[in-house]
Amino acid sequence: MSNSDSLNSKCRIIIDAMGGDFAPQNAVLGAVQAFEEKKDFELFLIGKEKEILRVLSENKVSFPKENIIHAEDVIEMGDSHPTAAIKSKPKSSIVAGVNLVKEKKADAFVSAGNTGAIMATATLIMGRIEGVGRPTMGAPMPNTSGICTLFDVGSSVDSKPKHLLEYAIMGTIYTKEIFGVDNPSVGILSVGEEESKGCEVSLAASELIKKTNLNFKGNVEGGDILKGTVNVVICDGFTGNILLKFGEAVIPLLKFKFKEYAEKGLMNKLKMGLVRSAMKDILKDFSYEEQGGVPLLGVNGICMIGHGRSTPKAIKNLVFRADYMYKKNLIKKFESSIKQYSHL
Amino acid sequence: MSNSDSLNSKCRIIIDAMGGDFAPQNAVLGAVQAFEEKKDFELFLIGKEKEILRVLSENKVSFPKENIIHAEDVIEMGDSHPTAAIKSKPKSSIVAGVNLVKEKKADAFVSAGNTGAIMATATLIMGRIEGVGRPTMGAPMPNTSGICTLFDVGSSVDSKPKHLLEYAIMGTIYTKEIFGVDNPSVGILSVGEEESKGCEVSLAASELIKKTNLNFKGNVEGGDILKGTVNVVICDGFTGNILLKFGEAVIPLLKFKFKEYAEKGLMNKLKMGLVRSAMKDILKDFSYEEQGGVPLLGVNGICMIGHGRSTPKAIKNLVFRADYMYKKNLIKKFESSIKQYSHL
Repeated sequence: MSNSDSLNSKCRIIIDAMGGDFAPQNAVLGAVQAFEEKKDFELFLIGKEKEILRVLSENKVSFPKENIIHAEDVIEMGDSHPTAAIKSKPKSSIVAGVNLVKEKKADAFVSAGNTGAIMATATLIMGRIEGVGRPTMGAPMPNTSGICTLFDVGSSVDSKPKHLLEYAIMGTIYTKEIFGVDNPSVGILSVGEEESKGCEVSLAASELIKKTNLNFKGNVEGGDILKGTVNVVICDGFTGNILLKFGEAVIPLLKFKFKEYAEKGLMNKLKMGLVRSAMKDILKDFSYEEQGGVPLLGVNGICMIGHGRSTPKAIKNLVFRADYMYKKNLIKKFESSIKQYSHL
Repeated sequence: MSNSDSLNSKCRIIIDAMGGDFAPQNAVLGAVQAFEEKKDFELFLIGKEKEILRVLSENKVSFPKENIIHAEDVIEMGDSHPTAAIKSKPKSSIVAGVNLVKEKKADAFVSAGNTGAIMATATLIMGRIEGVGRPTMGAPMPNTSGICTLFDVGSSVDSKPKHLLEYAIMGTIYTKEIFGVDNPSVGILSVGEEESKGCEVSLAASELIKKTNLNFKGNVEGGDILKGTVNVVICDGFTGNILLKFGEAVIPLLKFKFKEYAEKGLMNKLKMGLVRSAMKDILKDFSYEEQGGVPLLGVNGICMIGHGRSTPKAIKNLVFRADYMYKKNLIKKFESSIKQYSHL
């Protein structure tokens, strides 16, 4: 691994082989897919070397052996005390992988592991971008009009108005640079469109965002997320996390309803059989897998967090997104924009 | 109109003829449907008499003329200052209708009008049940296992822990009495299942609810609403309102996606045509119309609030629900249970 942080070099991406409900299988195969498909980044797999080699061998695929970094410990998916896990497992794939970014030996860390542990590790070890109070995770939301990303979906609870301002700034830059949206519109989640409506935090945050030159459209409602009324929707991490998980449960509920309907008779079963492929196509926008996970913005390095159920394809997409964030030099752009509004 | 509040008498229900996006048409036709279908309650229509009579005549239906109460004013759907509207429009159907319940000349008020105005009027005029700090609106949520109602969906923002306790108490009674669920389970929305996870308000509310003999299951996540993990999900009104409106936007988004798919080619169009009826059947659980609106609990009287887009059928269902709440003597049950936990 080279020791350089010049943007002209290839992005060096560490993939957590041990992250996700189907680790190391899916993470390793995702790395292999990314490696085979594109060569303009450097890929590394971190985790238990033996297990990584076993997956490669069992699936008859290859990955450069010199790019496998052994990490003997694992922070489990179910570990609910991430801060304790970071201390007790310094040799875990998450802590060791993030440390490589901190030490400038890599540029990005990608994992479908324990979200709380990745967030905490990235925040503690990479540190926050100067001026950022709380890093944020943004999730792409399916909608009828285009790009709409929801910030924050759970990096923090009890977000302060200042934090929502940061989400708006970083969300705008992310949407512009990554999705190519010109002058992205920003809305703040509230209980009504009227300016007077909101909770203490949302009302105070609105006052702050109004003072920026962001393309701020004021209050939006829950339904506006799926209408794609604005490109960037901001809210506190408590509300955002609950919304994200609610949204993720829509497809399973629909599938359950389809199945229930099909079981009511042969005609129903035939109808549902006919449209199975259509449904798959229609519902794919609701799938985290197509989206490639969520970025953790505001930390001093690139960090992409995949869903626990990430497939190899989802892992591959996370890698491509991390590479793109690197090429667009997002960290520097966040830093200078946060600085611009530090007086607010 | 008689002047009695004995529970042995028929429930006297006031229907706001002027409430809803399609008023007076849908409200009047809904009242007529309810009147024709069931006779064990007394129904009254309140609103502009001429307009009510015009709808009856145009649709060639009848409603007892002596049960039409003239109210010359209307609080508009778009009126965003409900408290001001209440003061400036004492002769509106909402204010006059709620006053009839306050004066014990009626038992229930049903409206698909301006939600903010109905809530504010009911709270100010009917008053709150002793011990209730904030009335709450509960919305039934589609799910894979049975009854799941979300409280609060927007009666108040910046709810305090004590208010969430009230939602849990009233939500439990409502679910038991109205849906016949034995010992309803209660969960509090949070960002993880672990007891330590939550925001300041949810964590403090959990501590209060734990001290009751409610069937409290602790934290649930956003996805648990659609899984129906518990029967009663409680959260602050800000989060609940955003979730409700997000959920309502799911069907329009799916319809948009179906249409988009159908437009891709003849085969697709045929497939979608085949399953149109299936879709309608499957998606109906997502429809507020089948559910008959939401109750406002915690005010000193029965108050049902319909969606602005309420159809006549939805209005009719609101009437039936109001009648059932009356027969089950819910107000008294709320009062005694709230009293039982007043020391918390």
